[in-house]
Amino acid sequence: MTATTSGQDMSLKLFELVGTDAARPFSPFCWRTRMALAHKGLEADSIPWRFTEKERIAPHGSEKVPVLLHGDKQVVDSWGIANYLEDTFPNRPSLFGGEGGRALMRMMNWWGDVVVVGGMFPLIVADIPAQLAPVDAAYFRSSREARFGKPLEEVTAGRDGSVAPFRKSLDPMRLTLETQPYLGGATPNYADYIVFGGFQWARVVSPFKLLEPEDPIYAWREKLLDAFAGLARKSPGFPV
Amino acid sequence: MTATTSGQDMSLKLFELVGTDAARPFSPFCWRTRMALAHKGLEADSIPWRFTEKERIAPHGSEKVPVLLHGDKQVVDSWGIANYLEDTFPNRPSLFGGEGGRALMRMMNWWGDVVVVGGMFPLIVADIPAQLAPVDAAYFRSSREARFGKPLEEVTAGRDGSVAPFRKSLDPMRLTLETQPYLGGATPNYADYIVFGGFQWARVVSPFKLLEPEDPIYAWREKLLDAFAGLARKSPGFPV
Repeated sequence: MTATTSGQDMSLKLFELVGTDAARPFSPFCWRTRMALAHKGLEADSIPWRFTEKERIAPHGSEKVPVLLHGDKQVVDSWGIANYLEDTFPNRPSLFGGEGGRALMRMMNWWGDVVVVGGMFPLIVADIPAQLAPVDAAYFRSSREARFGKPLEEVTAGRDGSVAPFRKSLDPMRLTLETQPYLGGATPNYADYIVFGGFQWARVVSPFKLLEPEDPIYAWREKLLDAFAGLARKSPGFPV
Repeated sequence: MTATTSGQDMSLKLFELVGTDAARPFSPFCWRTRMALAHKGLEADSIPWRFTEKERIAPHGSEKVPVLLHGDKQVVDSWGIANYLEDTFPNRPSLFGGEGGRALMRMMNWWGDVVVVGGMFPLIVADIPAQLAPVDAAYFRSSREARFGKPLEEVTAGRDGSVAPFRKSLDPMRLTLETQPYLGGATPNYADYIVFGGFQWARVVSPFKLLEPEDPIYAWREKLLDAFAGLARKSPGFPV
């Protein structure tokens, strides 16, 4: 796809994390960017990237994905990319809803990182190596087991019980969804994609049920799976 | 003080929770409203109200404070009041920073209720009866002990240790303050008052140290204590 800026023809390309299946992107942060691009009506060519391919993104100034290439620009970090898209395509639907929204979005982004992604990670981490090629699986296991200080299978053991405090930690969002359809208000915006990125990551890599069907967040997730012609639902994943 | 709207002279009056000392308002929700009024450059006459005076606010359609009276309008609930002030005084400094900010503010408000106020409450609750007249203290103790299922002193016992998860729960805010001065961005807005209301409530009723001095949230709280010519710091309270 091409986006026209300043008269130049500038294509968008996105480095995004995949496992053995290049058509099965995961990473909560790459999915934030995918949804943000769709919100702006933009397409980007996917450049599949795997954990151990650090040298492929090093020239673009990052050790992690997503990395967005736009003409001769390279933009790193999902939050940086969201801001870049908002500022570069101001006449397309807003991700933030103005400067007041952008300021609060910073906190939403951290809430998504700490509470949502950080809360899910110990519930699903042991399911991730199965999605990865051997070299990536070995890297993932050793680096994450060092972080947790125990085998991944011990981290997720007992998750049928430890999912309860995770669900409880989503109360501020759950209560919000009782009075408005989306975190962004009447329609979704980047606040929703911040959180949804985590759920889509989990859906892609793990069969574990993070939400109960009667949870308002479950219904919200269904709507986002269907958004943009089912962009997220069409991506391979486990039933939620 | 009088505010002029549609040519009418309409004074603002605020029912706010006090204890034995009518000049020592507490309630995290009343403080949200006090800061919001100051942000809008508005003054409101205080109508001191105590826990057991339900019949005094019942005619205004509420069982709780804050209740704002504005001419013949009565506005209940701190969130309702914030929206009322934003819509009624649109040309004064914005509390939300536009509609995108208002939408995300709903989640901030719930985060403030659940994580901030809800997290502080078991750390300070046993200190509250000492601020109240006997009849209010008895009401407060019996209603709150029923909620917790144990004596208030047992709720706060061990708080030197149980404060740690509370502090940790503020990480999304702490991380935000590392990249911008206020939750609202370069200057404070209602997001800041939502959280600050909780801290001011705690400061008024309890000597317990909720934050460590090196915490970025401590420095943020200092700035809000000084805001609006020291509105919050001038109100009687314990050293923080």
